[in-house]
Amino acid sequence: MTIPLTPISLRWIGDTTGQLELLDQTLLPSRMEWIVCRDVSVLVEAIQNLRVRGAPAIGIAGAYGLAVAASEAVAKRLDPQAARTLILERAEQLASSRPTAVNLRWAVERTLATIVPMAADAPATALAQALLAEAARIHAEDRTLCTAIGRYGAERLTAILSSRPSGSGVLTHCNTGALATGGDGTALAAITMAWQNSARFTLFVDETRPLFQGSRLTAWELTQRGIPVTVLVDSAAGHLLKTGRIAACIVGADRITACGDVANKIGTYSLAVLAAAHAVPFFVAAPSSTFDLSIDTGESIPIEQRPAAEVLCPLGIQAAPLGVSAFNPAFDITPARLIQAIFTEHGVIEPVDRQRVAAVLKRE
Amino acid sequence: MTIPLTPISLRWIGDTTGQLELLDQTLLPSRMEWIVCRDVSVLVEAIQNLRVRGAPAIGIAGAYGLAVAASEAVAKRLDPQAARTLILERAEQLASSRPTAVNLRWAVERTLATIVPMAADAPATALAQALLAEAARIHAEDRTLCTAIGRYGAERLTAILSSRPSGSGVLTHCNTGALATGGDGTALAAITMAWQNSARFTLFVDETRPLFQGSRLTAWELTQRGIPVTVLVDSAAGHLLKTGRIAACIVGADRITACGDVANKIGTYSLAVLAAAHAVPFFVAAPSSTFDLSIDTGESIPIEQRPAAEVLCPLGIQAAPLGVSAFNPAFDITPARLIQAIFTEHGVIEPVDRQRVAAVLKRE
Repeated sequence: MTIPLTPISLRWIGDTTGQLELLDQTLLPSRMEWIVCRDVSVLVEAIQNLRVRGAPAIGIAGAYGLAVAASEAVAKRLDPQAARTLILERAEQLASSRPTAVNLRWAVERTLATIVPMAADAPATALAQALLAEAARIHAEDRTLCTAIGRYGAERLTAILSSRPSGSGVLTHCNTGALATGGDGTALAAITMAWQNSARFTLFVDETRPLFQGSRLTAWELTQRGIPVTVLVDSAAGHLLKTGRIAACIVGADRITACGDVANKIGTYSLAVLAAAHAVPFFVAAPSSTFDLSIDTGESIPIEQRPAAEVLCPLGIQAAPLGVSAFNPAFDITPARLIQAIFTEHGVIEPVDRQRVAAVLKRE
Repeated sequence: MTIPLTPISLRWIGDTTGQLELLDQTLLPSRMEWIVCRDVSVLVEAIQNLRVRGAPAIGIAGAYGLAVAASEAVAKRLDPQAARTLILERAEQLASSRPTAVNLRWAVERTLATIVPMAADAPATALAQALLAEAARIHAEDRTLCTAIGRYGAERLTAILSSRPSGSGVLTHCNTGALATGGDGTALAAITMAWQNSARFTLFVDETRPLFQGSRLTAWELTQRGIPVTVLVDSAAGHLLKTGRIAACIVGADRITACGDVANKIGTYSLAVLAAAHAVPFFVAAPSSTFDLSIDTGESIPIEQRPAAEVLCPLGIQAAPLGVSAFNPAFDITPARLIQAIFTEHGVIEPVDRQRVAAVLKRE
């Protein structure tokens, strides 16, 4: 068995002449294959087809993508100006490869900013060094962020579970673990730490159609970590909540607005409405890079529509008859009023409103 | 092409020496294969594995199953008493093959009642004739019921849609059409008739995990009927409702209690909560045989738990890692307070409460 106990979503191998490698998440859990990115188009394809996914992870991948672009400039022996032009073009391709998650553009722009003050005649090799260093910094920081976010979340989950019968449930959606980040995850880090703090609970995960990130990825990560997990179809969450067994729901985020509205994987909004209907607290865990303070409310977040085949051909098997249409939004918006608290690396946003979002984010 | 324009779920071929044939719904829409039942165990397996499904259809199949049992007695040259004993044993096997839908037990008991007053020395051939005649009567009646239910439902849908912009949506869950009944369906009959009444709307159907009855069966039936359909993953219903495009939701039922609580395919309850949260009317369509007045509220309805593989291996493909558990209730309970009206063959139950349920059902 070569499977590591803590899975990782991506890694940079070597120096600036090296390469970005992505674990192809579309093949998990049945196969572990690494995609070698020595070309930005390979990375863009991987992001668009969710071979790498999760808002923090695609941010880190995007940042490394600029180092890939700089390597390309070095290999092509481009002069300093042509190298910068190439890097800028690739940066835009990367930043726009998925529209909803904001971490991607944030990470690309932050990485790009490191070469702005450099001399105009700085050679491509120098640009490559600066870009790779910044990408590696973002990657390393994300590990720390995950730990901080996880700690705030775990503290709350442990407190809630301590007042409930043993075996009470925690319900999550999609994948928010090591595969979605550069560290141990966001919501899944909180769940893992709560488990390690010896809070014993039954962990339920929605399978998360259309791409089964819950049953394929979260169930796999938790199995690696030795935490038992029970998978349910997304539509069974209402019935599960009605049984009274769920003490808390916790999910990640792809973008959070100034007022605390949250864009996340399709089905999050349904789950939040159902949690509210059963008076079960609904939590979000995300780093500050997921916040987009330029947007006030969720209505302004672009919602990516994805190919019909994801719905009509689950796991590549044609389920529906040919010629049928599909409605396939990748994300939905959960309004702040349905969220009990947001765990960030700077602390807990609670209640979730404009003032508290601003106050907690200012701590950085 | 041998595919009929109006699909049928089952048929009896020949006289009492003939056979019951079921369209194997687990293979649709890619293959049309008929299962020949000359043995009750074949039918029980088909019911348990949802080769035939839908509360009214499994009721009719169960009724014909008694004719199959009687044929078996004839073939085995059993004496009158042994024939009755065999039929009673098979009746219990059939009635208990799925626990949630009440039509199955209702139809089996009704059919069985035809031989109770017959002479104790009535030969197996006479029992077979009586049982087959009653099963055929239940089958024929179901066609009429579907038309009556569909008309009440279509009238209401047409009225609602007439006050909405053209292209407004109707959302349904699972399959409630010809494949689920002996006629044109319940909720799907209402939808079809509303369409034929030239109410133009966009029909959305939840794919209905775990068995994809929405994308496999409903989309197929509607394609046959020439009605365009848009499939969505179950968890996208909340987002769809939030867009304001849905004018009404309509579903079927597997059992309805005296107070109007409805057991139906898993996900129905989630959808009803979401519809209520968006002030979208939620309708149920079902024949009177779906009512179980011996049960007051939904808490007393047994909820069938089905194999984990349905969740973990969608369409036979292993999605989750081995060793993971699943929570797989086949049904959930929607409380009466979330239901705007129930369409039956005797009229419309509205508001949905104990008094109105009793009053409308008395009309038979």
